[in-house]
Parts: sequence; structure tokens; C-alpha cells
Amino acid sequence: MTNQFASWDETIVALATPPGVGAIGVIRLSGKKSFDIVGKLFASKDLKAQRSHTLHVGYLHNRNTLLDEVVVSLFKGPRSYTGEDVIEISCHGSPYIHQQIIDACIQAGARLAKPGEFTLRAFLNGKLDLSQAEAVADLIASNTSASHKTALNNIRGKFSEALKDLREELIKFSALIELELDFAQEDVEFADRSQLKSLVHQAMTKTQALIESFKLGNVIKNGVSVAIIGKPNAGKSTLLNALLNEDRAIVSDIPGTTRDTIEEIINIDGILFRLIDTAGIRNHAQDIIEGFGIEKSLQKMKQADIVLYLFDVNEMIPDELKTVELDLQDQKINHLLVGNKTEGNESIIRENFSQFSGVIFISAKNHLHLEVLKERMLDIVLKDKVSSENVIVTNARHYHSLVQVNEALNDVMNGLTNKISGDLLALDIRRCLQFLGEITGEITNEDQLDYIFSKFCIGK
Amino acid sequence: MTNQFASWDETIVALATPPGVGAIGVIRLSGKKSFDIVGKLFASKDLKAQRSHTLHVGYLHNRNTLLDEVVVSLFKGPRSYTGEDVIEISCHGSPYIHQQIIDACIQAGARLAKPGEFTLRAFLNGKLDLSQAEAVADLIASNTSASHKTALNNIRGKFSEALKDLREELIKFSALIELELDFAQEDVEFADRSQLKSLVHQAMTKTQALIESFKLGNVIKNGVSVAIIGKPNAGKSTLLNALLNEDRAIVSDIPGTTRDTIEEIINIDGILFRLIDTAGIRNHAQDIIEGFGIEKSLQKMKQADIVLYLFDVNEMIPDELKTVELDLQDQKINHLLVGNKTEGNESIIRENFSQFSGVIFISAKNHLHLEVLKERMLDIVLKDKVSSENVIVTNARHYHSLVQVNEALNDVMNGLTNKISGDLLALDIRRCLQFLGEITGEITNEDQLDYIFSKFCIGK
Repeated sequence: MTNQFASWDETIVALATPPGVGAIGVIRLSGKKSFDIVGKLFASKDLKAQRSHTLHVGYLHNRNTLLDEVVVSLFKGPRSYTGEDVIEISCHGSPYIHQQIIDACIQAGARLAKPGEFTLRAFLNGKLDLSQAEAVADLIASNTSASHKTALNNIRGKFSEALKDLREELIKFSALIELELDFAQEDVEFADRSQLKSLVHQAMTKTQALIESFKLGNVIKNGVSVAIIGKPNAGKSTLLNALLNEDRAIVSDIPGTTRDTIEEIINIDGILFRLIDTAGIRNHAQDIIEGFGIEKSLQKMKQADIVLYLFDVNEMIPDELKTVELDLQDQKINHLLVGNKTEGNESIIRENFSQFSGVIFISAKNHLHLEVLKERMLDIVLKDKVSSENVIVTNARHYHSLVQVNEALNDVMNGLTNKISGDLLALDIRRCLQFLGEITGEITNEDQLDYIFSKFCIGK
Repeated sequence: MTNQFASWDETIVALATPPGVGAIGVIRLSGKKSFDIVGKLFASKDLKAQRSHTLHVGYLHNRNTLLDEVVVSLFKGPRSYTGEDVIEISCHGSPYIHQQIIDACIQAGARLAKPGEFTLRAFLNGKLDLSQAEAVADLIASNTSASHKTALNNIRGKFSEALKDLREELIKFSALIELELDFAQEDVEFADRSQLKSLVHQAMTKTQALIESFKLGNVIKNGVSVAIIGKPNAGKSTLLNALLNEDRAIVSDIPGTTRDTIEEIINIDGILFRLIDTAGIRNHAQDIIEGFGIEKSLQKMKQADIVLYLFDVNEMIPDELKTVELDLQDQKINHLLVGNKTEGNESIIRENFSQFSGVIFISAKNHLHLEVLKERMLDIVLKDKVSSENVIVTNARHYHSLVQVNEALNDVMNGLTNKISGDLLALDIRRCLQFLGEITGEITNEDQLDYIFSKFCIGK
């Protein structure tokens, strides 16, 4: 596989820490000439003569110009992240100095690394499979306990192991079919078809569980969108602020979000809930829907994974609420009915709405029963009861490959039912194995790798 | 000195790399319990049993929760930056993970470091003197070759050595005076007053050279402000854009500047020139001064270290230019007269303005002779002919202490001239030594240190 990568022999360099001013910055090199290149700049010691996994303090010079006092970390291949000779230079955290040192490394024979190229080399050298490499990017982007845990599980190979099990079952099946094919001339049916059916059934169950897990995986990785809707004065902005006060996620820590966004984000038990169009809630209270049916409200609802319908318990007539509930059910929208302003006699209020089994009664103003609301929001997300201890698919590429595996398995099952010939069955099984191999990178191509690693940051 | 720092026994922890998402992040601990604390989280090896300056790969756990796969760098005191036991944890570059690891270290017994506290400890442990410690902050903030070079020189102790020389001369002087005082009863004048005068003269010369160097030092550290003024249609925005095209500094790399600023910054030979109020040049051409005397133009000129007076060589009458030049000279403004639009016959144009020795003729449109303009701008800054190889004072605190040293030396000289008694001379000399000691931190107090290190970033 390595031969397709023309630049494989080159030694790469990049800033590995975030750009900007800090106490220190780390510049990373990987490749055959790492020790030669840094050796030209670091005169204090002969780096090649040092042991792997040691630290050395000294000065870096580019020709006669002093660049910085640095600490150099040595990792000799294959005992390194990439499997190649790796050196990390820890220098003062000035962007000017980083640039000077990177320039000096390039003058001494390195070239600037492409995004994700260190991890690509780790993959090509067999230090990680492709799904593990992709989990490295997920881990860096993780911003909640749930996304952090699933990414770490995937780096450690939990997902890869599940795929390996699946693969082994398919290979077992394949072996039986191939055996039959070897004796095809004799028109003998070696493979016991009911045994084959049982194997395919097992494989389909596993695949489907993984496919199902993507729903939760996607939620863990990307969060859940929530729309708070209701009449003016139902207390929408009070509820929004109460939720934000308790669980607001620090948005600047979440990649891809900015302060300009119209979303506010809260973190409940490690799951991010994105409260959409909250600017609308805040600033255009008068624009927002009387009852139901207005275009804007519908759009918002359709964008949302969950709709919170908020009403004032002192104003709402049960018949009207019933209409709203039926409307939401008709549209198959995940929703919660939330009765606000329960500052009066709660038991009378509950009695008044006793025909509705699922209403959550809160007082947004007094932060009362918000924990019940949050639990119910979590319940909607986790209703598939997929435990976060299980293997969870979080990557859309893996999901789509698994869907294709499942389709191919379906074809195999149909083939078995229709008693098609062994060589046709073998074709479908090979398709399954191919899609599985694409996930772990056993079967891949340069374009696909380029695409996957281009989404990494430089220096990783 | 150490006893005044109540928190001295504690082990501190902080993120040492810039905040945000990157390939890796580094978390640094320093203090007696560094190895105990990280040892609780890092189960793969007994860290205490490992040698200093070694690297160890393994998993960090907080109780039963896996935090990350990390590389741990061990520095046993006193062979470390702070002189204490130091551990650096290199982890994946996710802000979520950084926070988790820092929290785990705090739960295990560390506390969050204050800004500059690692460098403060290095100073208190005698690894750096105070002026070297301050140069660390300057180095991190350095954004040009000149600021980088002076900060590195200061870290390496060039400035401290110059002060040491000065100090030794003063102590020599002091010794002679003290000797005289010991025999004061006998009314003998031991110290040769002419020899004393010569010593004080030498010390004053050195102090003055350092004080003088601050002018350049300040320029190197903070840049030079430049105002481009002139009539509408003289070509100010064309000149601005031509300069920016050739030498624009990447503003995002320069601490304390933002895109909102009305300054544009160019880097000429390692010196930053800040082109002030350029927004005005761009957007309010019609507001800008016909001739001289308008309030706005004057204000701008007074803010600037250098004024570029730009005129259209095809429109300007020499008599009018003479008025402008005299006006600028009267106000003691560093200025350059710049004739623009020399696209016609240059020798005729030069002839026309031959009475002005210093006019620089350019064509902003054609980028012609801009290098002459830039050289002349540099000449104004470097006219003191202070070579950047010399010791240069860049820190305002050092400058003010040196001014006080100089005043005290003046008093000594006056005392010698007026033949005042030895004990009064000794008082003035002690004042000199005290001000010198404040620079290097031999004489200091907690408030002053707090102030100096509060300007550092956390993690340094």
C-alpha cells in the first residue's frame, strides 16, 4: 500500500499545538531524516547517539542565528506515534519563533506536513486502523463526556473488534460456500443451507445493532436540536435562560460554533442540546405564533429533533392543548408538553390537565422541576436504550458502509431463500467483506484517504 | 526570600500550550508532589522509579474513567525549568480533555497555577534573575526578528552582565568610601577623590548608554507610529496599499492588536511600523487637511513618531512645500517629505524641488523607489546608531530604574564636586545599588513580583 504514496520518503514538519501565543509550542517532525534535520539545528549534543524516549535541553540555531532555547523529545521508530523516527521540539510559545523553527527545519530538508499526515502515516505503518485514525479526529473535537468516551473507545479499537467479529462470521460462511464451489462439478451441496442462514442472521443482527447505534452516535457527536415553542407570554425566554443558567455549554470550546450562531447550547449528562432559533425567542416574541399553524413555527419544529411546547397553566384550556398534542402527534414530532407558571396550587393544576399523561409541570421563574424536564429530554434521545458502554457508531462514513453491508447481507439471505447458486452467494459475501474492509482501511484508495485525512488539523 | 511566598510548598498545574483545538496540548506541573499526583493518574509505570529527562507513553485515568492516552515528560529538580520536580503531560488537543486532566490533577492534590508562576518559581529558585524572567514574556510576545533577538539576548543574560559590570564599579567605589568612613574619627581622606570621580563618570556613561538604548528598545518592542498626511489626491491610500502589499505584518500574530484597530502594521527589517489612522486615510479622504493647520491633522501628527508628508509632484509649488517643511521643523516632528506621482520626467521633477535636500521621490502607483522611502524610515529610527548587537533595554521598568540609578550617580558626582562627607556619598551609592538590584530582583518585594508576573500568561 505504501508505494502509492509518492511522498512517503519525505520527512514532514508542522506545529502540533494550537496556533497563537502561549507558554510553549510544540513542533513535530516525522520521517527518516528527522534526526539529521534537527541535528543540524541542535548543536549541543549528537541526537542520533541518544536513546529513544529521552529529553534534551539546548539551543536551536539556523546557521548563525540563535532561534530559541528548546527541549527536544526523541522517539525512534517504530516506537513512535507514526511508527517512524519522530522528534518533538518544545519551544517558547511565540508564533514568530514557531515560524522561524519550522522554516529552519524546511531549509534543513523537511517539508510542511499536510493535514492529518502524521496520523495517515500511523495508519499506513499499521499503528492504527482507519476507524481508529478517524476516532483521533473525533477525540480532538470531543466536547462532552459522552463524545469523549465514545471516541476514546473507538481509538482503543472497541469498534474495530466488533467489526472483526462480524468479519470472522462472514469468512466462516464464505469458507463453507467456497468449499461447495470447489466441488461444483460434482453438483454437491456441501454447505448446510440452514446453518448458512443462521450465520447470516447473526451477522445481520450485529450489523443492525451497529447501524441503530449511529442514531445515538450522531446525537453524541453532533448534539440534539430543540425548539421551544408556545404562545407569547408562555415563558419561553424565562425557560431558555433558566436552562442556560444551569447547564450552558461553553460554546467557544465547541468546534464549528460561534457567538454569531442563533443557537444556544446546553450540556445535560454529556449530551449537547442545541436550542435553535433562540434569538427569535428572545427578540421577536411578538412574531411568535398564536396557537399553531403559522409558517415560521412549523419550519422551526421541522428543524428540531425535539419540540418543547410550553404553555401557561393559568391560561391554557385543556381542549386547546389537546388540539396541539394531536397536531404534534400527526406530524410525528418528538415533543414534550410543558406547563409553566405552576407557582399556585400545583395539585389543582395537575388535576386540571389530568387527561394528559405526559405533561411536565415547571416553574421556569423559580427553577422548579427543571430536572424532570431535562430527564425527559434525555429519555427521548436515549429511548433506544443503547447503553453508552456498547460500541457506538459515530462516523457517517462508517454508518453508510454498514448500511451497504446490511443490504448485501439481505441479498445473501434472499439468495439462500431462493436457493441461488453458491458462486452468486459468494459474490454477495465478497461485497459484504469489501464494505467492512473500507471501514477499517484494509480496502481503500488514495482519494478516499486524502478525503478522510484532509479533515484533520495540520500537525496531527 | 522564599518564606514570603505562603504557597511555595504547593504543586501547581496549568495548560502550557495556547487554548483551543490542536493536534496536541501540554499540561505542566511543578512542585514537590508532581510525581505523586501524576503517579495517581498514570498507572502504566511507577514514574518515581524512572530517570529524569525520559518520556513515557500510557493511559491517564481519573478513578475509573479513562481520560486519554498521553506522553509524560519527566524533569527531576533541580534539572528543570523551575528547579522543582516538573512533569509535562502531552495529550490530545481537545479543550474538553485538557480540562478533564487539569481537574484530575487538582483532585489529586495540585492547584491551578497563577499567571507566570512557573517562571516566578524559576526566579525564586535562582534559575533566572528577574530581568531574564521578564525577557521570557518578551520572547513569547516577540513578533519580529529584532524583538526576538533582543529578548533572547536578555534571557541569555547579556543585559544582566552589563548590569553586573556597572554594579562592580559601584561596589569598588563604595569600598573606597567605606574605608574612609572606618577612619572617619581620624579625619583622614583615604579615597582619592579624582579616582572616585573617574569611577562615577564611567558608571554614568554605561548607565546613560543603557538609558539611551531604551529608545530603540521601545521601538523594537512596540513599533514606530507613522502618520501619512497630505492633501487629498496626493496618493495617500495608494502609498498605504503599496507599503502593505510589500511588508504587511500578520496582525493576528501580534499580541494586543485586533482587526478592529485603525492601525495597519508593516514590518521593515524586523522593525514594526504602525500606520496610524489609516481608516481615516481610506474612508474620509475628503476630511483630510487642505495644507496645514486643521485640528485633526495636527492631532495625528502629534501621535506619530514619524510623519510622512506626501505630495503630488505635479501639483505642489516649492514655496508651499517650504512652508510645510518649516512648520514641521518648528514643531520638532520627525518627518520625511515624499514626492509622489513621478511617472513623468524624473530629472525635471528633481530639478524643480532641488532646494529641498531630503525629498524622496516615489511612484506609489508603480511601486517605484519605495525601498528608498523604507530605508529613510529605518534611518530615523536607528539614527542613534545603536547596533542591535549591543545590549538594549526594552523594558519600561528597567528603564525607570536606570533613570533613578543615573539620578543617584548625578548626586554622587555633585557631592564629590562639592566635597561632601563620605557617609553622605555612601548613602547615594547605596541608592544606586538598590535601584540596580530592583532590576535583577536581588532587592524586591512580593507586590512587585506579583505585578511583574501577573502580566505573564498562565502556564508559563
